Amino acid sequence: MARADRFLNALAGKPVDTTPIWIMRQAGRYLPEYRATRAKAGDFLTLCKTPELACEVTLQPIDRLGVDAAILFSDILIPIEKMGVPLAFPEEGPRLQPVRDEAGIAALRVPDADAEMPFVMDAVRLIRRALDGRVPLIGFAGAPFTLLTYVVEGQTGKQFTETKRLLFTAPRAAHALLQKLTDTVVNYLAAQIRAGAQVVQLFDSWVGQLAPDDFRVFAAPYVRTIIERLKPLGAPVIYFANDGGSLLADAAGLGADALGVDWRTPIDEARAKTGDDVTLQGNLDPCLLFAPIPQIEQRAADVLRRGGGKRHIFNLGHGILPPTPPAHAEALVEIVHRIGSELHRIK
Amino acid sequence: MARADRFLNALAGKPVDTTPIWIMRQAGRYLPEYRATRAKAGDFLTLCKTPELACEVTLQPIDRLGVDAAILFSDILIPIEKMGVPLAFPEEGPRLQPVRDEAGIAALRVPDADAEMPFVMDAVRLIRRALDGRVPLIGFAGAPFTLLTYVVEGQTGKQFTETKRLLFTAPRAAHALLQKLTDTVVNYLAAQIRAGAQVVQLFDSWVGQLAPDDFRVFAAPYVRTIIERLKPLGAPVIYFANDGGSLLADAAGLGADALGVDWRTPIDEARAKTGDDVTLQGNLDPCLLFAPIPQIEQRAADVLRRGGGKRHIFNLGHGILPPTPPAHAEALVEIVHRIGSELHRIK
Repeated sequence: MARADRFLNALAGKPVDTTPIWIMRQAGRYLPEYRATRAKAGDFLTLCKTPELACEVTLQPIDRLGVDAAILFSDILIPIEKMGVPLAFPEEGPRLQPVRDEAGIAALRVPDADAEMPFVMDAVRLIRRALDGRVPLIGFAGAPFTLLTYVVEGQTGKQFTETKRLLFTAPRAAHALLQKLTDTVVNYLAAQIRAGAQVVQLFDSWVGQLAPDDFRVFAAPYVRTIIERLKPLGAPVIYFANDGGSLLADAAGLGADALGVDWRTPIDEARAKTGDDVTLQGNLDPCLLFAPIPQIEQRAADVLRRGGGKRHIFNLGHGILPPTPPAHAEALVEIVHRIGSELHRIK
Repeated sequence: MARADRFLNALAGKPVDTTPIWIMRQAGRYLPEYRATRAKAGDFLTLCKTPELACEVTLQPIDRLGVDAAILFSDILIPIEKMGVPLAFPEEGPRLQPVRDEAGIAALRVPDADAEMPFVMDAVRLIRRALDGRVPLIGFAGAPFTLLTYVVEGQTGKQFTETKRLLFTAPRAAHALLQKLTDTVVNYLAAQIRAGAQVVQLFDSWVGQLAPDDFRVFAAPYVRTIIERLKPLGAPVIYFANDGGSLLADAAGLGADALGVDWRTPIDEARAKTGDDVTLQGNLDPCLLFAPIPQIEQRAADVLRRGGGKRHIFNLGHGILPPTPPAHAEALVEIVHRIGSELHRIK
């Protein structure tokens, strides 16, 4: 089987020769070549908005690591800026002009992705051409609830006080914002798919802050809508509800082809909650890549065993961290492919 | 039944007239009288270390809210300073001189709580006298893993990179530190109990960062040891593994009389994981106290229903937040007692 097919087959529940693997943030600061391109770009937003540079960093890990998918280099906040929320990326992390009231929400626009974010679609086209069929390309967006937290908090939330104040005291305004974010994400991901993204992932990085009852009101319906509206385009959708152990049973009913699972919930326990009709993606603790390679092998083997070679895509349970030795990421891919191929031979 | 007995009876699995309630951080910044005492103290550490002031703020919410337990006002990092780690509390949160290597860990001391933290035991004695039997007094400490994160990160962790680097690359040093923290906590809680604390709670605020396999190695054994070593003193122990939905089944086997449950895991789901031999404490999302009172009532009723009046102590799923209107906290206590008494009458 061609390396090119593993990831898509695992998403579709078709047979694979070994467990496919890609790594969240695989194009990132742990790679010296990424840091060089980043320095060349000057700042992070310029890197995101320059198709040649975004293409360059997207490609860097593909052959070095031997992963089975590429993921567009970008940031989930790019479309937020185009909705009318000024955005900057100082050292401390993203900073936005927070929007917290009905008037501010009413003033936000749903941007036309092709017209207003052409640099993203250009990057997608360049990457597809450069990949030349080696592996599929994943496009992505933030999920509506997670995007809402940035719009409302104006930064990465800590206790998400402003977010929840909006949800619990002004639910109508919250739903208006979630609906605009949903429309934006649908338009944005559809444009990525038309430009060549073969799969899309929805990152719900902060949805684990919600109790299941609130997830059902403020997150799940919007994710379901996005998946339904993208369905005619034919690209599989992966939904990653980070820190969402309590949300997995609900998440399984939203129509996604795959669910990301963070490292807190063992894959076999996740499987018990989701049933068999969805692919699971995850979930080694990213910090285990600091450990010596034999220990990485032992823990990766455990994740593979729990995955049972059954609709499983290997990944970390969260993004790879800057202090990770690149050789350890390379070793992980080799380990997963080796043990995964034994697992699939046995079946 | 006297208000004084509810909380202890619920911990012991004995009948109660209504569901007892207390609120994590009930003595805190949401109360204007707390802010006044805090201003009088000048800084946070002085407030913690002045028995009369610590007593004053501990007592403030008791009659105002009508809660069924008092909790010592202090901070989990107090004993860490006495272990030899310089500590400050600027506006941004706690700052410590981080300790990350074997030599630094070997240099840490296990303080004698009575001799080196007499202000804590004095506060406990003052509070017991001032409470005069109205409600029981809870003492507390951080659990070893959570304390380790502060020692190693030097502050409140974000991605806990340094913590996990220690666990995964220098496990011997990590265990040496966890053992010293365990000895410190046992000595510290035993002193609190001898001074008059009738119950103690172990706060494992960051243990939810661990996958279950790592919880079993780096957290659970130390919590079990603390509980075993305190058992002869006769004070019930509550263990709160924050964001620990995946850890609840394991946590139930550690010998605690009660487990705190954060707001992410509904109490009935937590119960299914823990079995019936432990009291559960929680778990309304603290941000729901921003909502209008009818909505608080609806959600509190749902928590009570899921608790089933069966070994349940009501609490928030995390500490009460500074922007909370005090009237909403008062309303919550009234709601829980009212609905809880119907629940217990029906049974």
